[in-house]
Amino acid sequence: MVSSKPVSAKAEAMVLCRVPRWSVGLWASPGWWRTTCTLRALVQPKRGPGCPGGASGLLACSMFSKVSSCTPEVMLTQERYPVQRLPFSVVSEEDLAAFERIVPGRVVTDPEELEVSNVDWLRTARGCSKVLLRPRTSEEVSRILRYCHERNLAVNPQGGNTGLVGGSVPVFDEIILSTALMNQVTSFNSVSGILTCQAGCVLEGLSRYVQERDFVMPLDLGAKGSCHIGGNVATNAGGLRFLRYGSLHGTVLGLEVVLADGTVLDCLTSLRKDNTGYDLKQLFIGSEGTLGVITAVSILCPPRPKAVNVAFLGCPGFAEVLQTFSTCRGMLGEILSAFEFMDAECMQLVQQHLHLASPVQESAFYLLVETSGSSTGHDAEKLGCFLEQVLGSGLVTDGTVATDESKAQALWALRERITEALSGDGYVYKYDVSLPVERLYDLVTDLRARLGSQARHVVGYGHLGDGNLHLNVTVDAFSAALLDTMEPYVYAWTAGQRGSISAEHGLGFRKRDALRYSKPPPAVRLMQQLKALLDPKGILNPYKLLPTQA
Amino acid sequence: MVSSKPVSAKAEAMVLCRVPRWSVGLWASPGWWRTTCTLRALVQPKRGPGCPGGASGLLACSMFSKVSSCTPEVMLTQERYPVQRLPFSVVSEEDLAAFERIVPGRVVTDPEELEVSNVDWLRTARGCSKVLLRPRTSEEVSRILRYCHERNLAVNPQGGNTGLVGGSVPVFDEIILSTALMNQVTSFNSVSGILTCQAGCVLEGLSRYVQERDFVMPLDLGAKGSCHIGGNVATNAGGLRFLRYGSLHGTVLGLEVVLADGTVLDCLTSLRKDNTGYDLKQLFIGSEGTLGVITAVSILCPPRPKAVNVAFLGCPGFAEVLQTFSTCRGMLGEILSAFEFMDAECMQLVQQHLHLASPVQESAFYLLVETSGSSTGHDAEKLGCFLEQVLGSGLVTDGTVATDESKAQALWALRERITEALSGDGYVYKYDVSLPVERLYDLVTDLRARLGSQARHVVGYGHLGDGNLHLNVTVDAFSAALLDTMEPYVYAWTAGQRGSISAEHGLGFRKRDALRYSKPPPAVRLMQQLKALLDPKGILNPYKLLPTQA
Repeated sequence: MVSSKPVSAKAEAMVLCRVPRWSVGLWASPGWWRTTCTLRALVQPKRGPGCPGGASGLLACSMFSKVSSCTPEVMLTQERYPVQRLPFSVVSEEDLAAFERIVPGRVVTDPEELEVSNVDWLRTARGCSKVLLRPRTSEEVSRILRYCHERNLAVNPQGGNTGLVGGSVPVFDEIILSTALMNQVTSFNSVSGILTCQAGCVLEGLSRYVQERDFVMPLDLGAKGSCHIGGNVATNAGGLRFLRYGSLHGTVLGLEVVLADGTVLDCLTSLRKDNTGYDLKQLFIGSEGTLGVITAVSILCPPRPKAVNVAFLGCPGFAEVLQTFSTCRGMLGEILSAFEFMDAECMQLVQQHLHLASPVQESAFYLLVETSGSSTGHDAEKLGCFLEQVLGSGLVTDGTVATDESKAQALWALRERITEALSGDGYVYKYDVSLPVERLYDLVTDLRARLGSQARHVVGYGHLGDGNLHLNVTVDAFSAALLDTMEPYVYAWTAGQRGSISAEHGLGFRKRDALRYSKPPPAVRLMQQLKALLDPKGILNPYKLLPTQA
Repeated sequence: MVSSKPVSAKAEAMVLCRVPRWSVGLWASPGWWRTTCTLRALVQPKRGPGCPGGASGLLACSMFSKVSSCTPEVMLTQERYPVQRLPFSVVSEEDLAAFERIVPGRVVTDPEELEVSNVDWLRTARGCSKVLLRPRTSEEVSRILRYCHERNLAVNPQGGNTGLVGGSVPVFDEIILSTALMNQVTSFNSVSGILTCQAGCVLEGLSRYVQERDFVMPLDLGAKGSCHIGGNVATNAGGLRFLRYGSLHGTVLGLEVVLADGTVLDCLTSLRKDNTGYDLKQLFIGSEGTLGVITAVSILCPPRPKAVNVAFLGCPGFAEVLQTFSTCRGMLGEILSAFEFMDAECMQLVQQHLHLASPVQESAFYLLVETSGSSTGHDAEKLGCFLEQVLGSGLVTDGTVATDESKAQALWALRERITEALSGDGYVYKYDVSLPVERLYDLVTDLRARLGSQARHVVGYGHLGDGNLHLNVTVDAFSAALLDTMEPYVYAWTAGQRGSISAEHGLGFRKRDALRYSKPPPAVRLMQQLKALLDPKGILNPYKLLPTQA
């Protein structure tokens, strides 16, 4: 397969990754944290939720409150990519007046305020929207969409704007419909663990809310301090608890969605079982805001685990990694909550750029195994038996186990901070693919051989337990020629294994034309038909998810 | 709300429940087992998978091999219910010849052979199809549907024909498209536990297959000896492992589906994570064969638990049942695999009609708690702590724990054989609803008060852990007047709690007009639009799932 995309479009793979996606904790004031990242990374190289370094971090960075003062200007998406504006109406003064009647005092037109919502988190996409609306209720969302539908105005639904594929910001002048003020918990059932809330609730806030009631959210993300639950559902977020609690397609019990014409679709049941007709809510999970605007979510929360253990292990080869995973599933069974891997080059970069020391002897691969269960003693015993088995059989050559929370966090840092280490190594080309586990690392090996000395490093890491590989290539500087060597090679390789070219990030604006590598033409056609059925004027998050029409 | 349905339509609630849905084990010859039920129940009152009583059961019943010899004739659906045939073509000799070219030697027109597939498992619905087709491949299914679509011939996809709402048999003369010969396992990945197979694989066979490889299927049903995995997915089957492993919307990873016009939609990926476009397979999970014919399934199998424990407990009230459930979730956490309840009247009927003794002292409610985990010792200890807690606090007044498999089966029998006990008590009106757990039993109490002496028994039992109530009413003989007292009362009551009028059985033919009690008009309208999009001629499983058009 040969890529026909111009170089500018391919630059999507080159991503600035200097912003660790930690919990923002005290730094929740919208937007500023992404503008002051580099400094903050220096001041606060590692910080978890509720870390006491928060306040000083805020003070240290407060002088950099303007976007332009600490990061370069982001090129307009319409200039960087070959994309044509569709014939939507342009927002007029009359429109603004109408919006002011629907959401009085919550119509934002100040360019500086809009800046934060026009630029994506990675600072690689920039829209030029002139208006942002902040509804508080589904009824307001409904009135806004009914109006926009009639007027043929395009709308960009936006949650925490933490997406990685340019899906959460306008491409041109789409109206930004923010869920930020729809942040109320509607109900929580402490028997069933079912939470119902508005779409704009921040994930970290919800986590705290249910943890105080002895439950946990079934998903956890690096971006939890900013991301909205509605956005999580709209993008079918994966994250750190996926291995244990599975997909949002299983844990989301109900949704309220406002359709493109303003119709409120109430599928907000709080039932584990409901076989009355087609399960419509599923359509909107992972639809990236292109089929409707999610306004409320009902989600099943599992009980909070009482014990958490983390082991960090060294493996001599990828075959041993796979065998360790099999053994782990069998012996840890119901308490296994994470099985992450990283290769030797990852560790090398983490050591070199972050000065973190490996807790185990040098190995070809490293594993992070986490257990979460209801009994400290039982879990430690299970983990002990597992470690004895894998060390005794030579599957694992060295290992360490965290016995307290700070050591556990230190072990997690080795895995979580890889992105940061990579960005310290030069330009980074990023891929996020799903593959059958037994072929997972072959792509890294093949690409490494293909690139040879053209790349500084070709590294593989990720959620092995989910079959999710993060493949990253570092180079001195961005090169279009090198990109041609990697694309469509990586996509075609992935397609050859019936893999997914986007495991958890979605397609958004930047990957939409790669859809065909993971889905056959009849599936793409049906997607287009569904879009036409639900949003006949195409006003909802245009230029996203579906490929450019020929 | 007032019911406008004629009496004949309402008789749907009166169900003959004399056929226990055990694993058929050795009795897998199609159809005979459902015709010899009453006798078999006498000969083999309780039998699990692989029980040695199988062969003698077969011999004892073999004299009753004809349908008419042991059960009354089933009235034609078109005579019993006010339903009009839609203007589909009638199968001609030319059509049969065409089918013979597509599936040579696998076109069934013999009336006796067709009988089994024209009548539903509960023997309350009967079609008059003149032809059954047995494709072996998706390509054959595609050719059949392309032909039927062109000729405007209606098609009734059929798996194991174990559905409970008349969804799996023709209403008129629809062509029966059987998945019975599509019974091959395509692949099993012993690292990831991902199974890929054709739609006609029998669930019990798949269970054995993966258990031999130290995994379990994520679903288990009473009908496992007959039901097909394709049918399970098409009806979004719940069953006994739902509490632990969740919905098929989470565990099904990929589907191959043939659309109404013969297009093969290949979404048969074996990936845990795939965020490339809309998750199309979700549309077909629970669509009851009305949007496409599922031809292959990819499903995630969890590791096989090494230890299983069963406790049977007595509770003084429903408030204590709920508190016990909360305590149980907290203390058993990840090893809890079932939390079932039954009321005192259930136990009374089980004792009276089946002569089973209660293993605990008389109580207002009884609970069955099952654990499944990876360590015998740990699980027993956790269960012990839980029991100490609930007995000590008075939430539970008496209890027993099964220490071996036969005792565990005996405890499960008290719960699983309720249906049998009910049918021994007279005519049974059956409802299967989802409700918020805290209101679950109020419906039973309210209906009991409403019916007073008109009913022999009003009983409640079911999957409390899933919020799924089985509400049953026994009477001396069927009464249309009594039905009027219950319907739409039960549906309206359920709707008032935002419950589901069909938790796990689906809508099929018999409940389709009750859809509006669980879904608002915009949702029903969208369902109809999806049907029109995917099956514009309406040839796939007509008269099912969607309400009769006004």
